[in-house]
Amino acid sequence: MIQNIRFGECINSPYVKPKRVFYTERGIEKSWDVVEAHDSVSVLLFDPKKRAFVLVKQFRPAVFLKGTSGYTYELCAGIVDKPGKSLEVIAQEEILEECGYSLSIDSLERITSFYTSVGFAGSRQTLFYAEVEDSLRQGEGGGVESENIEVVHLPLLEARAFMLDEERPKTPGLLFAFMWFFERHPKNFF
Amino acid sequence: MIQNIRFGECINSPYVKPKRVFYTERGIEKSWDVVEAHDSVSVLLFDPKKRAFVLVKQFRPAVFLKGTSGYTYELCAGIVDKPGKSLEVIAQEEILEECGYSLSIDSLERITSFYTSVGFAGSRQTLFYAEVEDSLRQGEGGGVESENIEVVHLPLLEARAFMLDEERPKTPGLLFAFMWFFERHPKNFF
Repeated sequence: MIQNIRFGECINSPYVKPKRVFYTERGIEKSWDVVEAHDSVSVLLFDPKKRAFVLVKQFRPAVFLKGTSGYTYELCAGIVDKPGKSLEVIAQEEILEECGYSLSIDSLERITSFYTSVGFAGSRQTLFYAEVEDSLRQGEGGGVESENIEVVHLPLLEARAFMLDEERPKTPGLLFAFMWFFERHPKNFF
Repeated sequence: MIQNIRFGECINSPYVKPKRVFYTERGIEKSWDVVEAHDSVSVLLFDPKKRAFVLVKQFRPAVFLKGTSGYTYELCAGIVDKPGKSLEVIAQEEILEECGYSLSIDSLERITSFYTSVGFAGSRQTLFYAEVEDSLRQGEGGGVESENIEVVHLPLLEARAFMLDEERPKTPGLLFAFMWFFERHPKNFF
């Protein structure tokens, strides 16, 4: 489905803004190259009736460059680039756009936040949890415009094997979110 | 300890290499801006005698730019930039350089791998686990050259509160590694 990949110069990108930071630490002059990246939100979605996590699968050029197929499994997520909108509202919009579910803000549970790629980017991601079901679907999901986001229902009973399967690229945020879910449910839930 | 922070242009950085990727997906021509980033290794270090995790704390300019102090708590880690060295050897070297422990390769347990910042970077990180103790210390740690890496012993009994404390910036890989550790130990271990 992916063809004709080639590379070009990346000048004045609105998404990737390299910067050289100069500073003095304990009297020693230093510099460090960073990328200014947008903060983001992500949501662990679980469908109790289907007993499945709802994930998104999409082509990520940066992961393709690492010699993989480029298709990653991720939590529903989006960047924080809309001034004046709360993290919860952005999460709510991403759940509808990417996965097709219309949820109330109240159904979002905030788990925690963390910083990704601290070596060169330091983007802050806030992680939420929400439960969904078919009756809340108001669309197909798949993203906006020409995004090709596939909605994947991962059965709870397959989640452990999925975590160990390194052929299916995934993020550490997804791995943490799954562990968070496992821990808050009794063993006999599974 | 950090003073005199200012910014400059980032041209021909050996660390941050922006690239524009062009490709055709399902017949639609697309482009995406990425940063080519090094792969990395990280190690969850645990000292059974001290009953403490061994973490590193350091100043991260990219995280400072997000309005924090810039000091993050991380697993011992390093980039994969030494051709011909295995991930295990690189991990072993980082454990010595950053934390001062001399470990055999055999003492490294591979946990899994994942991809960070898949939206724009897609760096692959391989996560290990190892146990350490004072008798294995061969140096102070702290990093090489002018790195200012502080070695932090986090008591196991404080790890839960630490995970929830968003005032102390941390990575999702650290959060996942802690959960992995908690799950493999019986409740009465804590």
